[in-house]
Amino acid sequence: MKGKTIAESNTIMTELIMPNDANPLGNLMGGNLMRWMDIAAGICASRHSDSFVVTASVDHVSFNEAIQVGEVITLSAKVTRSFNSSMEIFIEVFAAKIPENIPRKSNQAYFTFVALDKKTLKPKKVGPVIPLTDEEQKRYEAALRRRDLRLVLSGRKEAKDAKELREFFSKL
Amino acid sequence: MKGKTIAESNTIMTELIMPNDANPLGNLMGGNLMRWMDIAAGICASRHSDSFVVTASVDHVSFNEAIQVGEVITLSAKVTRSFNSSMEIFIEVFAAKIPENIPRKSNQAYFTFVALDKKTLKPKKVGPVIPLTDEEQKRYEAALRRRDLRLVLSGRKEAKDAKELREFFSKL
Amino acid sequence: MKGKTIAESNTIMTELIMPNDANPLGNLMGGNLMRWMDIAAGICASRHSDSFVVTASVDHVSFNEAIQVGEVITLSAKVTRSFNSSMEIFIEVFAAKIPENIPRKSNQAYFTFVALDKKTLKPKKVGPVIPLTDEEQKRYEAALRRRDLRLVLSGRKEAKDAKELREFFSKL
Amino acid sequence: MKGKTIAESNTIMTELIMPNDANPLGNLMGGNLMRWMDIAAGICASRHSDSFVVTASVDHVSFNEAIQVGEVITLSAKVTRSFNSSMEIFIEVFAAKIPENIPRKSNQAYFTFVALDKKTLKPKKVGPVIPLTDEEQKRYEAALRRRDLRLVLSGRKEAKDAKELREFFSKL
Amino acid sequence: MKGKTIAESNTIMTELIMPNDANPLGNLMGGNLMRWMDIAAGICASRHSDSFVVTASVDHVSFNEAIQVGEVITLSAKVTRSFNSSMEIFIEVFAAKIPENIPRKSNQAYFTFVALDKKTLKPKKVGPVIPLTDEEQKRYEAALRRRDLRLVLSGRKEAKDAKELREFFSKL
Amino acid sequence: MKGKTIAESNTIMTELIMPNDANPLGNLMGGNLMRWMDIAAGICASRHSDSFVVTASVDHVSFNEAIQVGEVITLSAKVTRSFNSSMEIFIEVFAAKIPENIPRKSNQAYFTFVALDKKTLKPKKVGPVIPLTDEEQKRYEAALRRRDLRLVLSGRKEAKDAKELREFFSKL
Repeated sequence: MKGKTIAESNTIMTELIMPNDANPLGNLMGGNLMRWMDIAAGICASRHSDSFVVTASVDHVSFNEAIQVGEVITLSAKVTRSFNSSMEIFIEVFAAKIPENIPRKSNQAYFTFVALDKKTLKPKKVGPVIPLTDEEQKRYEAALRRRDLRLVLSGRKEAKDAKELREFFSKL
Repeated sequence: MKGKTIAESNTIMTELIMPNDANPLGNLMGGNLMRWMDIAAGICASRHSDSFVVTASVDHVSFNEAIQVGEVITLSAKVTRSFNSSMEIFIEVFAAKIPENIPRKSNQAYFTFVALDKKTLKPKKVGPVIPLTDEEQKRYEAALRRRDLRLVLSGRKEAKDAKELREFFSKL
Repeated sequence: MKGKTIAESNTIMTELIMPNDANPLGNLMGGNLMRWMDIAAGICASRHSDSFVVTASVDHVSFNEAIQVGEVITLSAKVTRSFNSSMEIFIEVFAAKIPENIPRKSNQAYFTFVALDKKTLKPKKVGPVIPLTDEEQKRYEAALRRRDLRLVLSGRKEAKDAKELREFFSKL
Repeated sequence: MKGKTIAESNTIMTELIMPNDANPLGNLMGGNLMRWMDIAAGICASRHSDSFVVTASVDHVSFNEAIQVGEVITLSAKVTRSFNSSMEIFIEVFAAKIPENIPRKSNQAYFTFVALDKKTLKPKKVGPVIPLTDEEQKRYEAALRRRDLRLVLSGRKEAKDAKELREFFSKL
Repeated sequence: MKGKTIAESNTIMTELIMPNDANPLGNLMGGNLMRWMDIAAGICASRHSDSFVVTASVDHVSFNEAIQVGEVITLSAKVTRSFNSSMEIFIEVFAAKIPENIPRKSNQAYFTFVALDKKTLKPKKVGPVIPLTDEEQKRYEAALRRRDLRLVLSGRKEAKDAKELREFFSKL
Repeated sequence: MKGKTIAESNTIMTELIMPNDANPLGNLMGGNLMRWMDIAAGICASRHSDSFVVTASVDHVSFNEAIQVGEVITLSAKVTRSFNSSMEIFIEVFAAKIPENIPRKSNQAYFTFVALDKKTLKPKKVGPVIPLTDEEQKRYEAALRRRDLRLVLSGRKEAKDAKELREFFSKL
């Protein structure tokens, strides 16, 4: 199965924060940001796998930066690695006020998606990811450890079997 | 500072899944579910703290159950424990098809919120949570370990200082 | 046909009032509140009848309390009585400002729904409502009078045939 | 205070029924129709009174006609009579399928609105309605009886004091 | 094929500008106005042709008047002329502030739509437009020149073949 | 005043077409596409000018490609040239079906925006655009002719004074 580079499925989404996206304090609600992250990441996964996809999980997300009504946010979603029928997608969010227009990184997250066969709607095999740059290579390798943690946290793997994760914690 | 029971801030939200909430396969998109979780959990945190609140983080969320357009979902958000100015909220989601009307648990998640002072918009102290039932007590205690993992994953604590978490992993 | 208690189909909906829900004065528009009432009441009727349902009518609704952007409203919908293929649903709305968090009753309404057969989409018979508390019993009995008024107001019954209603007005 | 004819504030609204406006059976939900009625009627009341207005009440509304996704509806809102600071608005809804394009009357309703002073936001006096046609005159006169019923149903007037209403029911 | 007068398909749409329709300065965004123009014009074209229609093009639109949140806009869409399977629709937009309620013309545009056969979804022949008033007649005649410009601008006609347009520019 | 390259303000927007974006035939409505074009182009103009901006006009737009619910569209907005306080923005739209994932160009348009001073909200001077590639240079030069046509079509310039346009038409 033919692989694809990460640039081939990179998905950029730009949104203007509107009043209904914000809480009564005028700050973008975390849930709305996650909704956009999910769409951008899902389109990225569709592009890598040439498939319909469904969200399988979201890793820990922190919200440290307040983003206000009227700001412009840019989401960039990149596949990091594929595992049989699933893909890990890395999303970074950048926010900028108008008119100052100075972007700052506000959030990042890892989503996983499963590719589905068009007819059976069952999971289907996904082609490999070809990391090129150092950073892409680093994310590609660390994907195993993140996957172990994900499987442990969702109860699908016992912590003692999470080899990558144990090695990580044993170094503490 | 006076505590509150968990029932006092329990927040129930019911939603009918509409066509625009779903992906092209007709399944509720994960991001839309997280958006509702964030609102229900935020209202719950507001009720516990009698404060404005902002989302601080979301822990790992899995999506194993497909929920379809036309189904009814019920979200129940409960505070589990407070930490100085933050609160951990546990959200369970139940879905039921119409007309069969047989609910099934579809998802769960832990969100954390920070209470803000009305005037300064700075974090303000939150009153304690009073766990009553066995299950409430269990979630209250395990909240420390989840908090450690959260701080490690968001890079605000070194893994070696996460005492609760180390004990958990050392038992593996 | 087996009856159900009122608690079995009680439906709770919680909403945060957003800027687009309000008129230019910042108050929740009556029509948006009715839209949520209709959804909550419809889900309640679906749950009582294990059926698809459609709105048949709404009784007189008053709007005496201004509800503002940023407030949290809770809707509670309860079936009061069933009539062949239709059900009367009682909805109460409570509003609370953030951060004060002191709920007040803002509105109430009676909606009626008709249950439809899944295949034929024709009206289907609905099981009886089992009132338990004194208040539930009182609403159950008064449902006949409200139904008479409804039929007179919609022109489907002549006022002189509305026995319950005539008795009510004759006591004036 | 100068009066206005009914035509001067007549408000026409046209809407295309979209998938998110409908229930899982593909029919326009009653609550969405009431939301549009409220907006059309509110604009009509604003135009008659040259004021901000808020919804005071909705009279009994029946839903006998199913309206489907893809149909076009036209709402026509007309003031019928003013009472001190309030106005009664009559709304008729017509629906037509595409491409057949044969309109049918689907609903009607009476809403009441209160005019507010721009600065104090207190109720302000509204100019009289000038009925011209026979139908306008008939609705103008019957408005007193509808108002009595409204006041009785909302508990703001005792039924025995509702002179117009008693006369109506005594003829039964 | 039977013609229709312009009044027969005239479509009036009234909208209240909500916070989410506006840019961070509180002004209605041009794109939202074009979205409403497209819906009003499309319904008008459907009414003239008793057909499903799709937007074929929009001519130059200027935005000179700022319209603010809380204003009421009225769109009036009228067919001007039909060409085989297409129709030109003229839309005028009027805006008025509440409570002053003094309408002003804010925009106008010409859209073209193509009528589609219900079964084949291929373009179908549209009946003629019957202009009655002087203004209707004037717009009917000038429609040929606007059509030439449209075909030249969309690259479907060479400028040298646009007879009407050449005559117009030769008079300069 | 310092210029910027076109790449510095290039704005990419990606959208998944949802059911409510489409007409009853399941095709993206032209007006919704124009709404997204307006937002993408407006953000691009804000980025070039470091200012708040408002839409001044839209040139002729054709809709030749049907885009269906479930497709993914990508909008790319690029500034072409600035004129005192206004900027011309060129937007291209590409659509791709899932899962085939083969993009095709579906639309293009030119929007103009005016930059506003943050305090006075009056038009403010905008820095020059620096075209680099041949295509950028070509669009930069042709912008004068498009501007003449725009001024003529909006009635702000007499056709006889539109030097660039006359030259263009004289070559026919």
